[in-house]
Amino acid sequence: MATHQFQPTIYHTAIGAHEPVLHIKSGDTVCTTTVDNAGNDANDIQVTERGNPQTGPFYIETAEPWDTLSIHFDRIVPNRSIGRTASVVAPNVLDPHYVAAGMLEGSTVEWNVDVDTWSATLASPEPALENLVLPLEPMVGCFGVAPPRGQSISTATSSTHGGNMDYRGFKEGVTVYFPVNVSGALFHLGDGHAVQGDGEIVGTGIEISFDIQFTVEVIKNKIINWPRAENEDYILTAGNARPLDQAVQHATTELLRWLEELGLEKRAAHILLGQAVEYDMGNVFDPAYTMVCKIKKSILRDIGIWG
Amino acid sequence: MATHQFQPTIYHTAIGAHEPVLHIKSGDTVCTTTVDNAGNDANDIQVTERGNPQTGPFYIETAEPWDTLSIHFDRIVPNRSIGRTASVVAPNVLDPHYVAAGMLEGSTVEWNVDVDTWSATLASPEPALENLVLPLEPMVGCFGVAPPRGQSISTATSSTHGGNMDYRGFKEGVTVYFPVNVSGALFHLGDGHAVQGDGEIVGTGIEISFDIQFTVEVIKNKIINWPRAENEDYILTAGNARPLDQAVQHATTELLRWLEELGLEKRAAHILLGQAVEYDMGNVFDPAYTMVCKIKKSILRDIGIWG
Amino acid sequence: MATHQFQPTIYHTAIGAHEPVLHIKSGDTVCTTTVDNAGNDANDIQVTERGNPQTGPFYIETAEPWDTLSIHFDRIVPNRSIGRTASVVAPNVLDPHYVAAGMLEGSTVEWNVDVDTWSATLASPEPALENLVLPLEPMVGCFGVAPPRGQSISTATSSTHGGNMDYRGFKEGVTVYFPVNVSGALFHLGDGHAVQGDGEIVGTGIEISFDIQFTVEVIKNKIINWPRAENEDYILTAGNARPLDQAVQHATTELLRWLEELGLEKRAAHILLGQAVEYDMGNVFDPAYTMVCKIKKSILRDIGIWG
Amino acid sequence: MATHQFQPTIYHTAIGAHEPVLHIKSGDTVCTTTVDNAGNDANDIQVTERGNPQTGPFYIETAEPWDTLSIHFDRIVPNRSIGRTASVVAPNVLDPHYVAAGMLEGSTVEWNVDVDTWSATLASPEPALENLVLPLEPMVGCFGVAPPRGQSISTATSSTHGGNMDYRGFKEGVTVYFPVNVSGALFHLGDGHAVQGDGEIVGTGIEISFDIQFTVEVIKNKIINWPRAENEDYILTAGNARPLDQAVQHATTELLRWLEELGLEKRAAHILLGQAVEYDMGNVFDPAYTMVCKIKKSILRDIGIWG
Repeated sequence: MATHQFQPTIYHTAIGAHEPVLHIKSGDTVCTTTVDNAGNDANDIQVTERGNPQTGPFYIETAEPWDTLSIHFDRIVPNRSIGRTASVVAPNVLDPHYVAAGMLEGSTVEWNVDVDTWSATLASPEPALENLVLPLEPMVGCFGVAPPRGQSISTATSSTHGGNMDYRGFKEGVTVYFPVNVSGALFHLGDGHAVQGDGEIVGTGIEISFDIQFTVEVIKNKIINWPRAENEDYILTAGNARPLDQAVQHATTELLRWLEELGLEKRAAHILLGQAVEYDMGNVFDPAYTMVCKIKKSILRDIGIWG
Repeated sequence: MATHQFQPTIYHTAIGAHEPVLHIKSGDTVCTTTVDNAGNDANDIQVTERGNPQTGPFYIETAEPWDTLSIHFDRIVPNRSIGRTASVVAPNVLDPHYVAAGMLEGSTVEWNVDVDTWSATLASPEPALENLVLPLEPMVGCFGVAPPRGQSISTATSSTHGGNMDYRGFKEGVTVYFPVNVSGALFHLGDGHAVQGDGEIVGTGIEISFDIQFTVEVIKNKIINWPRAENEDYILTAGNARPLDQAVQHATTELLRWLEELGLEKRAAHILLGQAVEYDMGNVFDPAYTMVCKIKKSILRDIGIWG
Repeated sequence: MATHQFQPTIYHTAIGAHEPVLHIKSGDTVCTTTVDNAGNDANDIQVTERGNPQTGPFYIETAEPWDTLSIHFDRIVPNRSIGRTASVVAPNVLDPHYVAAGMLEGSTVEWNVDVDTWSATLASPEPALENLVLPLEPMVGCFGVAPPRGQSISTATSSTHGGNMDYRGFKEGVTVYFPVNVSGALFHLGDGHAVQGDGEIVGTGIEISFDIQFTVEVIKNKIINWPRAENEDYILTAGNARPLDQAVQHATTELLRWLEELGLEKRAAHILLGQAVEYDMGNVFDPAYTMVCKIKKSILRDIGIWG
Repeated sequence: MATHQFQPTIYHTAIGAHEPVLHIKSGDTVCTTTVDNAGNDANDIQVTERGNPQTGPFYIETAEPWDTLSIHFDRIVPNRSIGRTASVVAPNVLDPHYVAAGMLEGSTVEWNVDVDTWSATLASPEPALENLVLPLEPMVGCFGVAPPRGQSISTATSSTHGGNMDYRGFKEGVTVYFPVNVSGALFHLGDGHAVQGDGEIVGTGIEISFDIQFTVEVIKNKIINWPRAENEDYILTAGNARPLDQAVQHATTELLRWLEELGLEKRAAHILLGQAVEYDMGNVFDPAYTMVCKIKKSILRDIGIWG
C-alpha cells in the first residue's frame, strides 16, 4: 500500500506498450501531475508535443491479461490558473446545412480557473459572457490501459481500453475498471478539464494541467469487455464507437452483463434496465464517441444484489 | 381562457390532417384522457386499435403556418392501476453479437401503478424483482402537431412535428413548443408512461392511460425548426432522427439558434454551449431516435439573456 | 390487358391515400407523363408546386394488403430537351471539416438532353466542362404505393412503400415489386432523371419530365417487406433508412428472405450471399438513404433455383 | 529498379512501426507470399497467429512523411487449392429483428480454388450449392503503411493508413496510393481472398495464401488524406469509418480534392461529380467500414484533365 510521488518527464500521444515509468503494486497510490492537451505544464510552459500527452505508463505488478484493473481517482485539482477552450462547436455536431451556411473563424479562449472559489470565468474579452461563472468539475478526459494485439492507439480516440472518452463523470471519487490486455496493464492518464460541457462539443473542455492522485487495484481473473465505473450513487459502463448508436449498444450490453454477474437472471436484468436505466453522453467530438449507461445503486440494494 | 372537458371517442395512429375533435382558442385549457399504447382506456378495456392511438386533434384558432404552438402540461395522472411493459431490451439497442448469441422470448409484464404512494411495483411474478419500487414520473410519449406537406406520419416515429419522442422530460410542468405547419396546428397526444427508463430501450415505458390537462398558446410569427421546451430549470430542444448523431446535430443546432434569438452573438453562443451544454437521451427504440440538448436557465440569467 | 392513355392534371408531393386518378386492372398498361422535381412539364412550364410531384395515384383493382404489386417500366423517355441539376455536393455527403472550410454558393445548372444522340451536355456556360458528354440513362427517382397505417409520406423521403429512392437501376426494363398496404395499392410516380450519379449527391439528377409507360401486375397473397426488383441480369432488394448501415441491413435481410422463398435453406443462402452478393448505392441525400443488395440470376440458374 | 525475392518468416497482426524485413528503393519490385487470415501458408500449415497476419513491413528508401507511396499489384495468384469462408452473414449487416429471431450456428466452409480453371467451387458438402462455380478474382484484403503518431493499429480495422478495407477492387492491375506517415513508409500486406462478395458480409472472402508481386514508387512532396487508387478505367478513393455515411463523406471529399488537384475548379468538380460519380462498397463487417468513390478516366479525358 505504498504511496508514490511521481513527476513525469516524458509523455505519450498514443496509448500502448511504452516503457513503464514506474512499477507499482496492487493497492498502491500514485501522486503525480498531468500536462494539458497542448503539452503545457503547471507553469503553462509547453514541455511536450500537443495531442493529449499522457503521463505514464504505470506498470502494475501482477496485472495480467484477463484481469481487471481498477483506478480510483482520489484527488484531481487544477495546478495552475489559466485554462483554454476552443470557440466553435465542431461541424460534426451541427446540422450540415447550418455548417454550410458559414462558420465563424475559431480562436483560443482563455479562462481563469480559481480553485479557491472553485469556479471558472472568462479571461478573454467576451462582453456578452463577462458574468458567466461556471463551477469547477475537474475530470480526466483521456486515460486507459495498453490495448490488445500489440496495438498503440492515438490519444485522440477511444475503444475497449479506454482512451479519449471525455466523459464528465470521470472525476474525483469515481472508480474506473479496465480490461487488462498486457502484463502490467500499463496505465496512462492525461487531458485534464477543469470544466466540460456534455459531449465536449467544441472539441475541448477548459483544458488545464492537474495535480492528481489515484489508487490502483488488480482484480484477478475478472474479465470485462468495456470500461466500467462506479461512483457513490451509480454503477456505469462506457461504450466507445461511432455512430453514437453503437456506443449505446456496447454500453447497454456491458451493463446487462454486469447485472447478470451480480446475480440477476437475464430476464430480470432486461426488465429492470428497461424502466430504470439512465444514459449520459460522453464525447461526440472524437473519432469514437462515448455513451455511458448506468443504474442507481439504491435500486440494486433494494432488490438485494448490491451490498 | 376557457377550460374544456373533452372525452375522446375516436383515436388516430398517425399524426396528420384528421378532422378536429374540438376547436379551442389560444390560452384555453383542455382536460381530457388518453388511452395507452395498446388502445386500452381507464377501465383497461381496449377501445381502439393498438399503436400509440392519439387523442385529438385539437384545432387551435389563429394558429397558422410559421407560428409556434406552445403546450403546457398542467397535470398528468395515471387513471388506472395496471401498467404494462415489454420484457426484453430491443435488439437495435444491443451489441449485434450479444443478440446473435440468443435472445429470451419476450412477454408482457404487468405493474401496479399506485398514485397514492406515487410508485410502481411489479404485478407479474418476478422473484428477483419483487422488492423493486420505482417512483412514478408520468410522461407523454407521443404528441405533436400535423406535419407539413399534407403528410400524415405514424405515431411509431417522430420528426420536426414532434411525435413518438419518448422523452422522460415531457412531464407535468413542462412547456413544449412546436412549429405550426397547418391552419389550427392540429395537436394530438397519447402514449402515456407512468415510468420510463432513458431511451425506452425495451420499447415501452410502463404503459398506461392518463387523465391529462394542458393549456395552449399560439405565438404568432415565430418560426422554430424542431420541438423546443422549457421547465423550471432548463430550456431545451429535441432532435428526432437516426442515427443518434443526427439527432444530436438537430438538437444542438436548434439550441444555438435559440441562444442567438435570445440576443447572444454566434461566437458567444458557441463558446457558452461548449462548456455549459447538457444532453438527455430520449428514445433509441423508434424509427427516429430522440436527443435533447439543454442549458440551465440560471446560466442564461447570469449573463442577462433570460428574465 | 388494356392500355390506358392518361394525362395528369393534379399531382401530389406526398404518397398516400389520395383520390385515385384512374382505376386499372392487373395486367394493364398505362402511358402517361411525369413533371420534373420542380413541377415543370414537357413544355418546361410549371404546372404544380415543386417537390417531386407525383402522377397518380393509380388504383389497381384486386390489390389488397398482404399482396404484392409489380410495376414493369416498359418505356421511359425524356419529353423535353432541357434538364436541370444543382451545382454543389450536399453537405451531408462531405467531410464536416471540408464543409466548415467554406462552400461555394449553389446555382441551377442547365443541360441539353438530346434523345436523338441519347446524351446530355451542359447548356449553362461551364468552360471546364464544355466537352462533357454523358449518355442518357433515364430513371424514375420517386415512386411507390400508399404506405400502411393511413400514413401519407413526403416525396422527399422513402421507406418500405418505396418513395424517393433515387436509384439509377430503376430504369426502362426493370420490374419493381412493392408490398400492398391499402386496397388498390395506389401507385404514384414522378421525379424523372435523364442522368444521375450514384447517390444523387448534389441532391438532383438531371431533372426532367418524362413520357412513361408501365405495366402492373397484382401478385395475390405474396408478402414482401421492402421493395424488390429484377432486371435482365439481377434480382435485387432496396433498403431505405439512415444511416446507410441500416439500409444495408434491410436490403441484405430482404434478399436472404427472397433466396429462402426461392427454396434455398438458410445456411446455403448465407454461404452463397457471402461470396456472391453485390451492392449498389441509391441515394445518400434524402432523409432516408437507399442501398440495393443484389445477386446475379445466372448464379441462381446454376444452382437450380431460378427458371 | 531491382526485383527482390522475399520469403517472410515473421508476421504482424497490427500495422505500425515494426522492424523492417527488407529495405527497397522507389521503383523496386518485390515477389513475396502472404499467409491467409488464419496464419496458414501455401502448404496450409499454420505458421503464425491468426488475425490477418501481414508480410512486411518493407522500408522504402526516401519515403518521408508528407510523401505519397504508390503500390502497383503486378501479380496476385493463390498458391494453394484450399480456401475457407465463414457460413453466416454477420449480425451487424442484418436487420436486428431478423438476428433476434435466431441465427444458425456458424462453421467453416471449405472451397476448392482452381487456378487452372480460374474458379472456386465448394469442397464442403452443401447439396444446394454443389453446382455453384464462382470465377476467381484474387484481391488483397488488408494492406497499408505505418499510421501517424506512433500508432500501431490492428489488422482487423482500417483508417487513413489503409488496413483491413476488404475491397474487391484491390486486385491485380490496380495502383494504390497511401499517405506516408513515417520514414520508409513501412508497407505491410496480407489477408488474401480468392473471391469475395461486396461488403465481406460473412466476415471473410475465400481466405487463401498468395504468391504476390508488387512494385513501389515514392511520390515526393505529395500529400493525400485517404487511400487513392487507379485501374485501367477509373480513379478512385477509399474512405474508412463507421457508419458507412462517414466513409462516404471521406471518400467523396477526397475525390473532390483529387479533381481539384487535376486542375478542375471547385464548382466544376462538384457539378461533374454530381452526375458522373460511382460508388463501390468495400467492407461492412470490420470495425471501420469502407466506401469507394470513383469516376471514369474516359470522362476525365473528355474534359482534358487526364492524359
